[in-house]
Amino acid sequence: MDIKQKSINTLRLLSIEQIEKASSGHPGIALGAAPIVFTLYNSIMNYNAKNANFINRDRFVLSAGHGSALLYSALHLFGFKVNISDLQAFRSINGITAGHPEHGLCEGVEASTGPLGQGVANAVGMAIASKHLASTFNTKDYQIINNKIYCLAGDGCLMEGVSYEALSLAGNLALDNLVIIYDSNDITLEGSTSISFSEDTRKKYEALGFDVTQVADANNLDDLEQKLTIAKKQTKKPSLVIVKTKIGYGSHLEGSNNAHGKPLTKKDIGVLKNNLNFDHKAFEVDEDVYQYVNLKRKQNEKYENNWNKLLKDYENENLGLFEQFKKSFANGYDLEAIENLEKLKLDDDMPIRNMGFEVLQELKLYIPNLIGGTADVSPSTKAYLEDLGSFSKKNYNGHNLHFGIREHAMASIANGISLYGGLKTFTSTYLAFSDYMKAGMRMSALMKLPILYFLTHDSVLIGEDGATHQPVEQLISLRATPNTKVFRPCNSSEVIAGFISWLDTVEPTVLVLAKQKINAIKSEVKSALRGAYILSEGKSKLELILIATGSEVEISLEAQIQLEKMGVGTRVVSMPCMEIFDKEDEKYINKILPKRITKRIAIEAGSSYSFYKYVGTNGKVIGVDDFGASGTSEELRKMFNLTSENIVETAKGMFTKKEFKNIKK
Amino acid sequence: MDIKQKSINTLRLLSIEQIEKASSGHPGIALGAAPIVFTLYNSIMNYNAKNANFINRDRFVLSAGHGSALLYSALHLFGFKVNISDLQAFRSINGITAGHPEHGLCEGVEASTGPLGQGVANAVGMAIASKHLASTFNTKDYQIINNKIYCLAGDGCLMEGVSYEALSLAGNLALDNLVIIYDSNDITLEGSTSISFSEDTRKKYEALGFDVTQVADANNLDDLEQKLTIAKKQTKKPSLVIVKTKIGYGSHLEGSNNAHGKPLTKKDIGVLKNNLNFDHKAFEVDEDVYQYVNLKRKQNEKYENNWNKLLKDYENENLGLFEQFKKSFANGYDLEAIENLEKLKLDDDMPIRNMGFEVLQELKLYIPNLIGGTADVSPSTKAYLEDLGSFSKKNYNGHNLHFGIREHAMASIANGISLYGGLKTFTSTYLAFSDYMKAGMRMSALMKLPILYFLTHDSVLIGEDGATHQPVEQLISLRATPNTKVFRPCNSSEVIAGFISWLDTVEPTVLVLAKQKINAIKSEVKSALRGAYILSEGKSKLELILIATGSEVEISLEAQIQLEKMGVGTRVVSMPCMEIFDKEDEKYINKILPKRITKRIAIEAGSSYSFYKYVGTNGKVIGVDDFGASGTSEELRKMFNLTSENIVETAKGMFTKKEFKNIKK
Repeated sequence: MDIKQKSINTLRLLSIEQIEKASSGHPGIALGAAPIVFTLYNSIMNYNAKNANFINRDRFVLSAGHGSALLYSALHLFGFKVNISDLQAFRSINGITAGHPEHGLCEGVEASTGPLGQGVANAVGMAIASKHLASTFNTKDYQIINNKIYCLAGDGCLMEGVSYEALSLAGNLALDNLVIIYDSNDITLEGSTSISFSEDTRKKYEALGFDVTQVADANNLDDLEQKLTIAKKQTKKPSLVIVKTKIGYGSHLEGSNNAHGKPLTKKDIGVLKNNLNFDHKAFEVDEDVYQYVNLKRKQNEKYENNWNKLLKDYENENLGLFEQFKKSFANGYDLEAIENLEKLKLDDDMPIRNMGFEVLQELKLYIPNLIGGTADVSPSTKAYLEDLGSFSKKNYNGHNLHFGIREHAMASIANGISLYGGLKTFTSTYLAFSDYMKAGMRMSALMKLPILYFLTHDSVLIGEDGATHQPVEQLISLRATPNTKVFRPCNSSEVIAGFISWLDTVEPTVLVLAKQKINAIKSEVKSALRGAYILSEGKSKLELILIATGSEVEISLEAQIQLEKMGVGTRVVSMPCMEIFDKEDEKYINKILPKRITKRIAIEAGSSYSFYKYVGTNGKVIGVDDFGASGTSEELRKMFNLTSENIVETAKGMFTKKEFKNIKK
Repeated sequence: MDIKQKSINTLRLLSIEQIEKASSGHPGIALGAAPIVFTLYNSIMNYNAKNANFINRDRFVLSAGHGSALLYSALHLFGFKVNISDLQAFRSINGITAGHPEHGLCEGVEASTGPLGQGVANAVGMAIASKHLASTFNTKDYQIINNKIYCLAGDGCLMEGVSYEALSLAGNLALDNLVIIYDSNDITLEGSTSISFSEDTRKKYEALGFDVTQVADANNLDDLEQKLTIAKKQTKKPSLVIVKTKIGYGSHLEGSNNAHGKPLTKKDIGVLKNNLNFDHKAFEVDEDVYQYVNLKRKQNEKYENNWNKLLKDYENENLGLFEQFKKSFANGYDLEAIENLEKLKLDDDMPIRNMGFEVLQELKLYIPNLIGGTADVSPSTKAYLEDLGSFSKKNYNGHNLHFGIREHAMASIANGISLYGGLKTFTSTYLAFSDYMKAGMRMSALMKLPILYFLTHDSVLIGEDGATHQPVEQLISLRATPNTKVFRPCNSSEVIAGFISWLDTVEPTVLVLAKQKINAIKSEVKSALRGAYILSEGKSKLELILIATGSEVEISLEAQIQLEKMGVGTRVVSMPCMEIFDKEDEKYINKILPKRITKRIAIEAGSSYSFYKYVGTNGKVIGVDDFGASGTSEELRKMFNLTSENIVETAKGMFTKKEFKNIKK
């Protein structure tokens, strides 16, 4: 058997054995797509397994994340930090070889994948990042960034809308550093793809601006390598390489949807080995296979060495750029930006979203690698970087991304940009439409990517656009998402705190910004950074705590005045970020929300679920638990009782007559 | 001026005046697309404004919902129940002319739209419904269902992934009753579409299986009518009619992105009238225009009359089918199905998802118009109707829909099916992937459509697939969505109750079904229908309440046994549906959760936010507030302390030593 074929069969068997041992996993893709993954790592990609994070490496994203076992087998074979014992621990708790690939857990995994289609958008994000960084740092003589992004996508990935959104943008941007490899096996879980999918794939992707080639049989390695090489050398368009594969290749289930997710038994593996004419001991790799792939390892090391030499020369000739380059990849700008934001004073007499805009303009002075954009709503959300140009195929140096009306792709592309490294990124749309991109936001959180989600139009109070545009359940949905900080600020200090918190963390931050102006008391950024703080303390003896965020702080302050007039000692706590407050020490929490004060009212123009943990069964939440309507902001305020009058009435209802009598004494 | 042209200008002005009066709205599309909407209502569509719900009417979906003012103007002109005073109340609270069109609020609005792209998928759903009903009820001699579905989509709609998903499926299904009209004006909010969108549209949609034609100028009414007529007569494929329009046509902002969402002033309207060479008093329609469109009204009435005669003859010749037809459109099967489900006994010795499958098989016996499917996961979620065939272009009579791996389109298509009438529909995927379709689920809720979401793999306890497939925040996100019932059952009675509740409501129901088997006590369906109930009462004096759902009921029962051994009187409350329980009367609520028992522990393998309102600040929630991991179900259970041991320990921590001493006496 030819050594390449032997290596591929080794990948196949290592993968199948992982799945068999775990009694769980997806044999179909592992057997079918092994030639593709092998060819990429062996003949096409530049990387260095000994330094998996080498900056100018080619990226490989396994968008069809259920092919995890195959990826782990390849990472092992080509020298990444994945041992045979890791393969044997496939899908076990505390292992690095998770059920679906997890970035950060296993070296060489460029993106966490599994939810289909998103990996494709991650790859587009990486290609955008690479183009932008190349345009920033490359000089006539030095191409320090010139890597390629490869992505393996299955039928499922390409059926998902997110991949279409991302690839349509990739075509528009002429990302010639992007190679999408379509593992086309004509089978999905329910049977033949033809039951729901019958596109002329070539024609479609040509229409999107791709160069399209096809490999009729993945097992024709020469053809495969040739077509991938053509794609690699493309200089005008992104490429799609359609590779016809057989799901479950070589097994008794070859070509059947039953091959997709059912582990092969030991007996089935015997049949497989017979069919492949390949003798193999479980979890063993023959020495000649290791020797063969070692040739590639050496090439890889040389490749990085050459790049390091290039970078050294670059440093000598372009010291300024070099330092910026280093700093960008080390997230070296955040600290300085934080220091400057702490000193920033903003006029409070403007809509909250405009404050977000102002901070972005400030940030761009300190963070030269800031890049981001909106899903076609920058005039409305104000999330753009003035004078820094639009990122387009004619100007990869632009810092403003025009994602188009494609929220899901926006989030998943941002994930890709962030995964690539070297850039700080933000995205923006209306809060209500975070629903469109929630699946991508979840992946930002799971991968702990420091992406800023700049979401405006934050409640029913936007008014006239009506219920479809008015968020209700979105705030709690994002707060309940692990590793996600949600800021809903009421004044400029809290807006600034939101940005600082973002720069200070390795997790996504959601800034929820009102479209309108809010009259709130000025406060200190450092108070806002505790997540919740006393914004206004009453003069009478403390009896009642009002907890509010964003646009409801104003009415809480108004209510406080009225309540104090009645003698009810009232504290207004502004709570811009629960996730931070919840992690404060008990002493601070008890200072802000003393246990003995059980009369508490929380007010927020969103689902009341967010606040029961603070007000308890004795307290009340004034929230929005129904869909909104068209009308003026003021009418909506009344419709949902988001008024100071209602706060006062609610407060009164919490006191007995006797209590009131005592208060008035 | 030609009377057609005059009518179109009337639509334009009526729309602009609405927007001016409301100081809010979108002039751009109203001016640009008026010829399209006029031609549809005047020359292309069959409907009867006097009976807006006439079953065999053609449907028009304004996917570009920001064109609401134009739609209302057309509904007024063509005789629907939209008066001039309604136009004058555009975007006012309590009016019928909401900011974006709302189905149910305004007659003639076939779908609530605004969140872009979804209307396209709604239209695909309607086309599917029409095909299925036609194949069920039409005979050789009687074509009682032969209507067409028209949808107006803008650049934004077609950039959204959901429209791509839906149209790819429409091509696969050869829905020749579907006509998508693409209002192509080359402008979006941020500027020229070319900044993010440069597809060869014709080629793309041909690749998806569409017949594509183009109208070079929307104002060429003959060309427009001709191309729409060709599309209307298509018999093999769905059609896309690309119509080039000018955003803000006739205004001083024609062709500019500023025309999109900025109301014209009174002065601007003067300029517009000048440019259109059209004299017009605000909110007035010239008599000759009314007279002209009245011709169409009369045709319409005659069209329905003819259909009614046809139906009468159909009734005479096909009484059985006719009665089924009537019953289907009257939701006439639900009651009988509920009665039968109440009597149904299911084996509790099977995974919860399999119980869902069993109920579906039972339901199909009583509900002949049941149709639904999954996003390519039916072998895994078990949501299919055995022996009822697959819906395909060769078999529109099939009841199982293969949506493909397209969750968002699935939800939005289901909305369209439900909007069409005559069918009862369900969709299915994994709970974690509800994120992909949340934007569609929200529209089910907003429109109050009785769609069943059959979601399995309901917690981290699915195990090996890992964090990407393990839901955490999804339960609270759906519970916080207004008009949405979420059931998370622990046994067969609760599964049955979930289905009954769905049949008994006009809102969406989310059934969250564990992949695994659960050992829980048998209970009564009628208890489960109260939302929460005492599943198991301890023998000692009541001291502690455990509230649990689904897979956590089992461990709560185990904990109860141990706690009772220690003398702690413990009640286990199963809470399959909070939304129902929260609407029970106070007496019932107080019976289940007596106020005096403040020691409460809620246990659910999902975000703890769901339960604070029941346990208060004294109680505890044992939930999952972090992402999961790969491992066995048992390992995950330990990782997240979802164990009876932890419940017991938590309970112990709630008692003082003294209290414990007293208990033991």
